[in-house]
Amino acid sequence: MAQRLSAQRVTLIALGVDDLERSGAFYETLGWQVAQEMPGVKFYRLKGLMLGLTGKAALAQDQGRAGAELGIGAMALAQNYAAPEDVDAAFAAALSAGATALKRPQEAEWGGYSGYYADPDGHVWEVAHNPFWPLDAEGYLAEPESP
Amino acid sequence: MAQRLSAQRVTLIALGVDDLERSGAFYETLGWQVAQEMPGVKFYRLKGLMLGLTGKAALAQDQGRAGAELGIGAMALAQNYAAPEDVDAAFAAALSAGATALKRPQEAEWGGYSGYYADPDGHVWEVAHNPFWPLDAEGYLAEPESP
Repeated sequence: MAQRLSAQRVTLIALGVDDLERSGAFYETLGWQVAQEMPGVKFYRLKGLMLGLTGKAALAQDQGRAGAELGIGAMALAQNYAAPEDVDAAFAAALSAGATALKRPQEAEWGGYSGYYADPDGHVWEVAHNPFWPLDAEGYLAEPESP
Repeated sequence: MAQRLSAQRVTLIALGVDDLERSGAFYETLGWQVAQEMPGVKFYRLKGLMLGLTGKAALAQDQGRAGAELGIGAMALAQNYAAPEDVDAAFAAALSAGATALKRPQEAEWGGYSGYYADPDGHVWEVAHNPFWPLDAEGYLAEPESP
């Protein structure tokens, strides 16, 4: 019953930003297409969910904690790629667009290949190749085969 | 070309936690099913992506900034629901599982119905009904109709 009440699902990832113009320019330089735009907010469509950018103050207020200082969180958003070369290319593209390198792509202990960068507001992105997680044609995680 | 190099895609949302047992218990009390588990990490499958829980120190180290204090970020993860009553139920379920209420579900300025809570580590979740974003049968955002 609990499962019916709280879905195992994410339909929006909202990132608070200092300067919507600057952040939008970063993601759009990477080739992202805006799906919806309203004063103070921009949405980019992912598969079944949106990634939204909104001002930090507005986000804090909307969350019912107006005035809260929203910092760099214990969080990362990852993009998986089919090959290590794609990881290198994505990492280079992000730096070209103004990202800050945190960890250059390298072999990871867990058997994959991974790097990290921060977007203009410090939100952390991982770019990774994980040989154990097959991807579908769109680059999302393939559904597991039925038992 | 930029679009090819950096995909408009998220395949993993990684949340850093203080106590993996406690955090896992929270999500599993909500009915979430573990897809993959390894020492220090738990993954829950969403649609085409995973939500992963991992220790904050391990996350900071993996990100190439060992010892960094990872706080509460300028971020929210949202679950959209088909009706305001579903939002109320999801909010109540989260509080029952140990979440901290930030904002009780209420009519939102943008025309929907929304509440916010924090998970045991302070990660912020929104539960919302958005009459302007149609959902598919799985509760994810419906694909836009082709023009």
